[in-house]
Amino acid sequence: MNIAILFGGSSFEHEISIVSAITLKKVLKNSNLSFIFINANREFYLIDSKNMKSNHFSDGAYLKDKKLILKQRAFYTEGIFGLKEQNLGTVLNLIHGRDGEDGKIASLLEFNGISYISPRVDASVLSYNKLYTKLYAESLGVKVVPYSVLNSSDSRDIELEYPVIIKPVRLGSSIGVSIVKSVNDLDYALDTAFEFDSQVLIEPFIDGVLEYNQAGSKTSEFELSIVEEPNKEEFLDFEKKYLDFSRDGKVEDAQISTQLKSDIQDAFKKIYATIFEGSIIRCDFFVVDGEVLLNEINPIPGSMANYLFEDFEGMVKRLVNHLPKESDIKIDYSYIHSIQSAKGGKNQ
Amino acid sequence: MNIAILFGGSSFEHEISIVSAITLKKVLKNSNLSFIFINANREFYLIDSKNMKSNHFSDGAYLKDKKLILKQRAFYTEGIFGLKEQNLGTVLNLIHGRDGEDGKIASLLEFNGISYISPRVDASVLSYNKLYTKLYAESLGVKVVPYSVLNSSDSRDIELEYPVIIKPVRLGSSIGVSIVKSVNDLDYALDTAFEFDSQVLIEPFIDGVLEYNQAGSKTSEFELSIVEEPNKEEFLDFEKKYLDFSRDGKVEDAQISTQLKSDIQDAFKKIYATIFEGSIIRCDFFVVDGEVLLNEINPIPGSMANYLFEDFEGMVKRLVNHLPKESDIKIDYSYIHSIQSAKGGKNQ
Repeated sequence: MNIAILFGGSSFEHEISIVSAITLKKVLKNSNLSFIFINANREFYLIDSKNMKSNHFSDGAYLKDKKLILKQRAFYTEGIFGLKEQNLGTVLNLIHGRDGEDGKIASLLEFNGISYISPRVDASVLSYNKLYTKLYAESLGVKVVPYSVLNSSDSRDIELEYPVIIKPVRLGSSIGVSIVKSVNDLDYALDTAFEFDSQVLIEPFIDGVLEYNQAGSKTSEFELSIVEEPNKEEFLDFEKKYLDFSRDGKVEDAQISTQLKSDIQDAFKKIYATIFEGSIIRCDFFVVDGEVLLNEINPIPGSMANYLFEDFEGMVKRLVNHLPKESDIKIDYSYIHSIQSAKGGKNQ
Repeated sequence: MNIAILFGGSSFEHEISIVSAITLKKVLKNSNLSFIFINANREFYLIDSKNMKSNHFSDGAYLKDKKLILKQRAFYTEGIFGLKEQNLGTVLNLIHGRDGEDGKIASLLEFNGISYISPRVDASVLSYNKLYTKLYAESLGVKVVPYSVLNSSDSRDIELEYPVIIKPVRLGSSIGVSIVKSVNDLDYALDTAFEFDSQVLIEPFIDGVLEYNQAGSKTSEFELSIVEEPNKEEFLDFEKKYLDFSRDGKVEDAQISTQLKSDIQDAFKKIYATIFEGSIIRCDFFVVDGEVLLNEINPIPGSMANYLFEDFEGMVKRLVNHLPKESDIKIDYSYIHSIQSAKGGKNQ
């Protein structure tokens, strides 16, 4: 199986994407891997497997690697005799945050006819924006954590029951997120969030809420991971998440009732089908009064949540053979021809 | 003003995009125009202005024009001495339907740092899909035409009050759309719609509904077009829309009350701000019992709805100077550096 791991990107999570890629190199042991790095200037580099160490990027040593150009059907290296096609196989989009999760990378790959594992552009846009995620989930009958929306231009004269959690509608990895325990801390938290986005979500912060993560994919059928009961800290700050993204050890299946597990899996399947086909995602759920609420969708989870799957590499292989295909659009110029003949062949 | 009109694309509306581009060549009289054509295989060609005639494309004569490659900050021509940068100015995305309206072109241009007029990727995804349009509008308090959703896998055993209109959730220009007057015609209409999409909308078909179109943009402030009362036929079939896309004559402002006009404009502004910044869009509204309902958003209207504006070329010029700017993300590898120093410089 030829897999090209695409990582980096112009994203606040650029560095954790490097960590994710290094982790997946260890996890996908039996695959023929290539590594495509996107630097901060959004240039593509083909990285030799032996150079997949974090300092190769932080020191700028990657700049000596071959640059790639993306064209129809393939990546190319630029050389003195022109462009040379590289056959790198299916791209696995491992860019967290901007570029990777917001639909841009999916668009680039789709437009250029490159086979790829990633949420497609529409699934990306809906999951990258926490407000759209809620609208999408609600339209499917999946319950969400209650919320209100505030725009940067709105009055902050709002009545809230504290504690609340403030989140920029976009961005992942807890960037710009604050827990606000009283009105005194509200302004600072909103200022922080509005630094990253012009729209924020305000949600009740539910102390000690039951939280469960479900990852999965759809190949010939749904392939769901174990249900994970994540770290119980208030929420992971950036540095802890960073370490979390390098996980490759296995975790335990959560000790929950068959009913709850089935409710979580049903909610996951509703969210996934059909717009997330072609991707491996993780949905994070809260359980409140026995009810499963979607908290958020991780369209490109850290190290692809590999540690939650029994046979991650096998699933990737099966997914490569079940990627959605773009429909063909035949362009035969029949309308232009008919208009031209109606005009007696007049050039126009 | 340097404007590069981008047209064609892998879209059912490829041919009407050519018509739109030829029309805009006539309309943007005082601008320095370039023309970038995307053919059915998604290859870019730089078209000489004198070749902007429909048969240049339908006959395949464009294949002799210069091919372009899109890289960071510019388009390039490929020559015997390597790639040569072309300075084409701000791109105006005039690709109707797939590629142009679904977020792919916006993504390509944004990723490559090209200045462009078009809905951005999120606005594209929300307006390309008629279901997401409704969710988005409802979240803003803009009323929509009532609807239900049917998936291709769902049972068709549904109770409806006829007539209804059936629409694939994606695609524009009435493709796959049918008016169904009785249960006998339902299956055929659904089969037709499901040929184009796995999800369809079913809406009441309101005979003789009042319909008004409002186009606009935001430069230093909102610039709204006149309110158009469009053609009263049941709906425009593809061929009629085709001709409609070549319009460049002026139309009359609709004869409506000040109140209704202001309601339409308010709804337009709510929809537009802030995610449509950088674009010129047209919103199509129905008025039922005095209430303004959003019917759909045209993210790339035919010939940019130029005929609805008093000073279309001036607005384009002002918009070029008010395009949204992507935020800078500084990548300083501080996390990788701190982890490396914690590990005593171990390479990993």
